[in-house]
Amino acid sequence: MKIGKVIGSVWATRKAACLQGQTFLVVESCDGVVVAADQVGAGPGDKVLLATGTVASRYCMDAPVDAAVVAIVDQEGRHVSP
Amino acid sequence: MKIGKVIGSVWATRKAACLQGQTFLVVESCDGVVVAADQVGAGPGDKVLLATGTVASRYCMDAPVDAAVVAIVDQEGRHVSP
Amino acid sequence: MKIGKVIGSVWATRKAACLQGQTFLVVESCDGVVVAADQVGAGPGDKVLLATGTVASRYCMDAPVDAAVVAIVDQEGRHVSP
Amino acid sequence: MKIGKVIGSVWATRKAACLQGQTFLVVESCDGVVVAADQVGAGPGDKVLLATGTVASRYCMDAPVDAAVVAIVDQEGRHVSP
Amino acid sequence: MKIGKVIGSVWATRKAACLQGQTFLVVESCDGVVVAADQVGAGPGDKVLLATGTVASRYCMDAPVDAAVVAIVDQEGRHVSP
Repeated sequence: MKIGKVIGSVWATRKAACLQGQTFLVVESCDGVVVAADQVGAGPGDKVLLATGTVASRYCMDAPVDAAVVAIVDQEGRHVSP
Repeated sequence: MKIGKVIGSVWATRKAACLQGQTFLVVESCDGVVVAADQVGAGPGDKVLLATGTVASRYCMDAPVDAAVVAIVDQEGRHVSP
Repeated sequence: MKIGKVIGSVWATRKAACLQGQTFLVVESCDGVVVAADQVGAGPGDKVLLATGTVASRYCMDAPVDAAVVAIVDQEGRHVSP
Repeated sequence: MKIGKVIGSVWATRKAACLQGQTFLVVESCDGVVVAADQVGAGPGDKVLLATGTVASRYCMDAPVDAAVVAIVDQEGRHVSP
Repeated sequence: MKIGKVIGSVWATRKAACLQGQTFLVVESCDGVVVAADQVGAGPGDKVLLATGTVASRYCMDAPVDAAVVAIVDQEGRHVSP
């Protein structure tokens, strides 16, 4: 997964029927900006874990999405070299 | 998903049998230009959500496509930092 | 999908058993050069639609290929801004 | 797979229910930094094999992860040209 | 698929149980260096076809690998423009 930051939202009324009820967040990571489905309840500025590909679709009840927020990051620790 | 803009169309008569009836749009996003199947009814200049990979194929009744337009974007909002 | 141009062929005698009978074309797209299975009958110089990932494998009867030519492009039209 | 080095960890309490019990490591490879689920027991500084995509999810009991540590590298040998 | 060259090997004793018996080769392609499972019997310096993603896993009996050598290239021909 990539660590990203929630920077916005997207609204769409004309869409695949199976996308009804999905929330779309704009997430910025080191790979650029993607639109991800959110079922964790992330909000503006949250640091999140982003899963992409078929995995994201399965997590969102097989909706046609290729990116999903799967966790909100509490803490990220880098190991200190001895 | 990526946000893209519909900039053209592609026509092909010699193709996989299971591609019959699919509409192919040329969509430009931050990742470059891709050809995506469209079942939402997007038109020239529309801002769209683009899903890629197996997800796109499933959405298009398992046709051999790896990109699909899944929504037309009404509005994209960026959060304002406090 | 990506639009690519057929620029060569690849021959391999030692290969996965399930690759027997597959034709491999060298296709150049904006993403670089890939080797794709062809079941559409594309030839040298043809402009083709390239599908990648699991989608390509399914289209080729579950052979272990991750790229396939799924159509030969007749025409590509770019929309004119008003 | 990519060869990466474990450089940190990530903690998340609000997450997909099916992520409970997963350990998340920060792994740096030539492709950049990713967060990967670990079921091999890798530790700080370990050189690991990283698998990405649906493969990683299957390995982690279909959890919504798109990267997983699948092995700890003992030795990497480069062939010497004659 | 990508055309790559076998440049090394990787050994790992602590790994996913389902990776037992897999041979791991280091393969260099235009996309960089990856570690791929080999069931074709490729050796140092061989030019090979590399399949990535779920396709590679399926070919390797659903082992958690995302890259596999699926063929050894005998010959690669580039078409000559008329």
